[in-house]
Amino acid sequence: MIVIMKHNASAKNIADVISRIENDGYRAHLSEGEERTIIGVVGESPTPLRAENYSTMDGVDKVVRVSVPYKLASRVFHPNDTLVPLNGCQMGGDRILVIAGPCSVESREMIIETACAVKEAGATALRGGAFKPRTSPYSFQGHGEKALQWMAEAREVTGLPIVTEIMDPALVPMVTEYADVLQVGARNMQNFTLLNAVGESQHPVLLKRGMSSTVKDLLMAAEYILSHGNTRVMLCERGIRTFETATRNTADINAVPVLKQETHLPVVFDPSHATGKWEYVEAISKAAVAAGADGLIIEVHPKPEDAMSDGRQSLTFKRFEQLMQNVRRVAEAVNRSA
Amino acid sequence: MIVIMKHNASAKNIADVISRIENDGYRAHLSEGEERTIIGVVGESPTPLRAENYSTMDGVDKVVRVSVPYKLASRVFHPNDTLVPLNGCQMGGDRILVIAGPCSVESREMIIETACAVKEAGATALRGGAFKPRTSPYSFQGHGEKALQWMAEAREVTGLPIVTEIMDPALVPMVTEYADVLQVGARNMQNFTLLNAVGESQHPVLLKRGMSSTVKDLLMAAEYILSHGNTRVMLCERGIRTFETATRNTADINAVPVLKQETHLPVVFDPSHATGKWEYVEAISKAAVAAGADGLIIEVHPKPEDAMSDGRQSLTFKRFEQLMQNVRRVAEAVNRSA
Amino acid sequence: MIVIMKHNASAKNIADVISRIENDGYRAHLSEGEERTIIGVVGESPTPLRAENYSTMDGVDKVVRVSVPYKLASRVFHPNDTLVPLNGCQMGGDRILVIAGPCSVESREMIIETACAVKEAGATALRGGAFKPRTSPYSFQGHGEKALQWMAEAREVTGLPIVTEIMDPALVPMVTEYADVLQVGARNMQNFTLLNAVGESQHPVLLKRGMSSTVKDLLMAAEYILSHGNTRVMLCERGIRTFETATRNTADINAVPVLKQETHLPVVFDPSHATGKWEYVEAISKAAVAAGADGLIIEVHPKPEDAMSDGRQSLTFKRFEQLMQNVRRVAEAVNRSA
Amino acid sequence: MIVIMKHNASAKNIADVISRIENDGYRAHLSEGEERTIIGVVGESPTPLRAENYSTMDGVDKVVRVSVPYKLASRVFHPNDTLVPLNGCQMGGDRILVIAGPCSVESREMIIETACAVKEAGATALRGGAFKPRTSPYSFQGHGEKALQWMAEAREVTGLPIVTEIMDPALVPMVTEYADVLQVGARNMQNFTLLNAVGESQHPVLLKRGMSSTVKDLLMAAEYILSHGNTRVMLCERGIRTFETATRNTADINAVPVLKQETHLPVVFDPSHATGKWEYVEAISKAAVAAGADGLIIEVHPKPEDAMSDGRQSLTFKRFEQLMQNVRRVAEAVNRSA
Repeated sequence: MIVIMKHNASAKNIADVISRIENDGYRAHLSEGEERTIIGVVGESPTPLRAENYSTMDGVDKVVRVSVPYKLASRVFHPNDTLVPLNGCQMGGDRILVIAGPCSVESREMIIETACAVKEAGATALRGGAFKPRTSPYSFQGHGEKALQWMAEAREVTGLPIVTEIMDPALVPMVTEYADVLQVGARNMQNFTLLNAVGESQHPVLLKRGMSSTVKDLLMAAEYILSHGNTRVMLCERGIRTFETATRNTADINAVPVLKQETHLPVVFDPSHATGKWEYVEAISKAAVAAGADGLIIEVHPKPEDAMSDGRQSLTFKRFEQLMQNVRRVAEAVNRSA
Repeated sequence: MIVIMKHNASAKNIADVISRIENDGYRAHLSEGEERTIIGVVGESPTPLRAENYSTMDGVDKVVRVSVPYKLASRVFHPNDTLVPLNGCQMGGDRILVIAGPCSVESREMIIETACAVKEAGATALRGGAFKPRTSPYSFQGHGEKALQWMAEAREVTGLPIVTEIMDPALVPMVTEYADVLQVGARNMQNFTLLNAVGESQHPVLLKRGMSSTVKDLLMAAEYILSHGNTRVMLCERGIRTFETATRNTADINAVPVLKQETHLPVVFDPSHATGKWEYVEAISKAAVAAGADGLIIEVHPKPEDAMSDGRQSLTFKRFEQLMQNVRRVAEAVNRSA
Repeated sequence: MIVIMKHNASAKNIADVISRIENDGYRAHLSEGEERTIIGVVGESPTPLRAENYSTMDGVDKVVRVSVPYKLASRVFHPNDTLVPLNGCQMGGDRILVIAGPCSVESREMIIETACAVKEAGATALRGGAFKPRTSPYSFQGHGEKALQWMAEAREVTGLPIVTEIMDPALVPMVTEYADVLQVGARNMQNFTLLNAVGESQHPVLLKRGMSSTVKDLLMAAEYILSHGNTRVMLCERGIRTFETATRNTADINAVPVLKQETHLPVVFDPSHATGKWEYVEAISKAAVAAGADGLIIEVHPKPEDAMSDGRQSLTFKRFEQLMQNVRRVAEAVNRSA
Repeated sequence: MIVIMKHNASAKNIADVISRIENDGYRAHLSEGEERTIIGVVGESPTPLRAENYSTMDGVDKVVRVSVPYKLASRVFHPNDTLVPLNGCQMGGDRILVIAGPCSVESREMIIETACAVKEAGATALRGGAFKPRTSPYSFQGHGEKALQWMAEAREVTGLPIVTEIMDPALVPMVTEYADVLQVGARNMQNFTLLNAVGESQHPVLLKRGMSSTVKDLLMAAEYILSHGNTRVMLCERGIRTFETATRNTADINAVPVLKQETHLPVVFDPSHATGKWEYVEAISKAAVAAGADGLIIEVHPKPEDAMSDGRQSLTFKRFEQLMQNVRRVAEAVNRSA
């Protein structure tokens, strides 16, 4: 940590900062410039170093944190890629894995039909919502456990593992009975009670970035899960909220290389939510793979114009099949397969 | 709902839209312009009208929703102000009510000391965190139930009702035993499981706006609570996330008159989180009251430079006292008291 | 400037940074922590210190700039408030000065009529657009020099000085013949050619914040003008662009106390653009004054529903008169007059 | 245009709107729903239809514009791709064209050396700044006309056409003497005086998106240039401003397919500014091509750590050469060449 004093900080202000550093069990390292004094904090101590408290002291201009706050998620302390097993493959490995399926599981038939179609096209796992986080209390909220049972049937038919969102920490035991991967949605990325619960579960987790969360916030949320010893965490970029209204969200493509550099965890991209319109999904899928994403999660529906949710951004089977073919070519161009 | 067809939509495209409208149980109202056709959807039907599905149809350019999606929160259907009782006063009434206290309840002594100080200065209720949503799993997470007990003691001493954040739906019964108002934090504004739980509880709720939520999203979140018959909901603006880094958040002062126009629920402003720096808290408190806020929620700490959280934005007792005096003058200038 | 080395920086990396610092004519001040090394750069040298170049060197994690980059605008080096004379009063003094008038000068009659009305209500200066920056090339672009002549007539009638936008550096000589204050609009805040031209002119300038500019960017833009020796600069907050769509822009009320702390220049608030809807203008005007703004600039039109631009956010004469009365009361509550 | 009346609009409110529509020379088309009345405006008239004015009328809730406001830029009225000739190739054609070179032209030698290197690696045109828009008045502002002369020499040596930024409308005649393409920078995207001047020049233009401009704003800015009969306009996405601080800007990759759908103009992507860090430039270049961009503009410098500007995001010759090879493979995977 570095404490930057104000231009006009007094000798007493500086002495107070130094004395606090020493009381906290660290050493102060003074650097006196022409314009101002800078104090480095070095050493180790059991007392946590609260930057905020130092920044409140008289004569302090600002405090700069130096260390990475996400020790477990950081590549600095864990240089090798973490691979998360999925259906005999590995998310984070050479092959781009695609998770596909409807926004909501609407019926037994539709989920089985969709599972067969996305498997045929090359998907590795099946997505489908049983509990839906809807902006309006009057919108369809999902079929709950029944939907999970239907998904389990679809798994039996196709062999595709199930990825589904969980919203209620109390339902972790029930949902893990059915699901292969627990999805934490964007709206719950900082629902710490839920993060702790899925961390405890030791189940694989797909953690979606909050719509106004920074990459650093996402890594801190992953840290919650990792701190329970659950290392099977996949990070998912799904678009952030900006002033642009031409698309539902702004796909933060930069997040892909930033995450691949900062963390060892695999990076999945969700072009469906990141654009909100099916006609842009293929272009952004290819972009994500070209930028280095390890996987994709894509909404597919037998009949998007009748979907109970997210119809606007869902692909038909045919369009998904074409997407898979075209994504495969881009994957090969970056020395991956799909 | 209005369906705007594309410039080059075919007669068949238009017929398909009309036929869908009629199948859904509504009436289509055609308006043929030189450039394009516009179709109004009128009537009532038990089938929900999903704009998204229409926008997926061939030849459709866009779909505009016309009705307000938050019937219970909207002032259209409930023109009179809702008043939420708080300590013998009413949030939403003539008097500006101030909720004050520390970010976290750090000890029995500090919360009692703070409660006495803020009461003395004119606060109506006491805030204090027992369960803290922290970005890092390594940061102080709050003293839990013990903190609630200490707050209850502080209430006994001062008479100030308790406002505290709840993060876990499973803890609603326990927290409501102590708390007078349940706070739903910004990070949980769209944690629908929690919204349903606090709705069911019938306890007064302070609902904070998510940091990337629109005013409309906030009203939809309130609608979740209201739909359980719990009408004692206070909305709280606490700053949104923007590109500006000079402050922790951007205080959305516009949200005050917008909310007062759109909804009958009382509007509370949190200048501490909205700025993130104590030196701006008084200015923004006065601004919020001048703009029409019904209440304020402010972080106060006996010694901000030692705070376990949010020290940077906490006021000392002395500064809070001065703030109260100055806010009072502004309140009077807009025909309110404080 | 502080150079923070990476965790795994080599001794050679560190030596290279030190040697560059010394080559640039500064002294390096080493601080070796357990985790990483931090290098302070002290001293003075004619060679500019380019943080970016250091951050490109091997082994460097990041570079933190310490000094304020806006020496002339900063309050650090110029603690006393700058007062800009306006119509016998001073922007930045005790009295809140209000600049009012139409978005565009539409005719000789309307500008004279409006000037009389706003003067009567207590305005100090008259605003009006002769050259209009319109998003569409097909929208009304202003009446040009003719409009300036009409404004000059209005000044003769009322005594109100003229504030008008300038877009073309080549027109500075012509516009300064008529205008008392040159307004640089939000879209041109980083039009450096124009900033240099108005700086050279030595005419008072009202500099509006760009819609995605930080407070720091605004101060750097002011620095361009100040660096020509033109110190009569008024800064204007007019709302920034965010994800919120309930209002045209998001009024950044925080910017008021931030600017008052960072700079000695007077701060004007534009509630008309900051909200985009006339019904919110009075609330936000009062908020701005309560937060510490020195002045307001408000759009007023004899008949907003017939305005050639910005009708949606323009006040009628009657509403402006009422606003003035109510703002006056808030001004008094913060020990100012209006 | 569609006028949506408020829930409680009176018969007189509705009649007033209709009468205004008819006075403006259009026909009103009424659609009376259970909840509210909607009025479509059809027909043609010389009177411009100002949505804003209607939205100011009593009883009006909102006004929805239906027609595309950018007739010349829109693909609706001009379905075929516009191809802009560049060095014997065509921007917008099958081949991905790459414009490369330094941020600033620092010396005669460096620009010639860089031109040779980027040509060798496969670039089609040379970029280089002679007039630099710098946030600070104290930063290097470019070598001006001298830099243009050096670029002309580099063109003579390599045959690469010159792309350079213009900031001052008065300099159009001089700059067009040297430059093959005039670049309008992000900060000047709504400098309408400049847009008119480059439109008049009939010179090819590279128009960069403003950092807080929507895709629609960008198309309206292009419309200014097109309306002068200058159709050789290339649009450039260079990142937008958001809350994310891990990168300099947020690359809006969605803008690529959105623009390709909305307009016939070619789309160029600038991964250097869109990320701000050289280590992410290759990943984002590949993403842009995979998403459908027609060209790239990339900063390359012989020695980035000594660059007078943008060193942090500039590639070395070697890294640029490698990027070209890898981009070529992605181009082929999407049926293009590079």
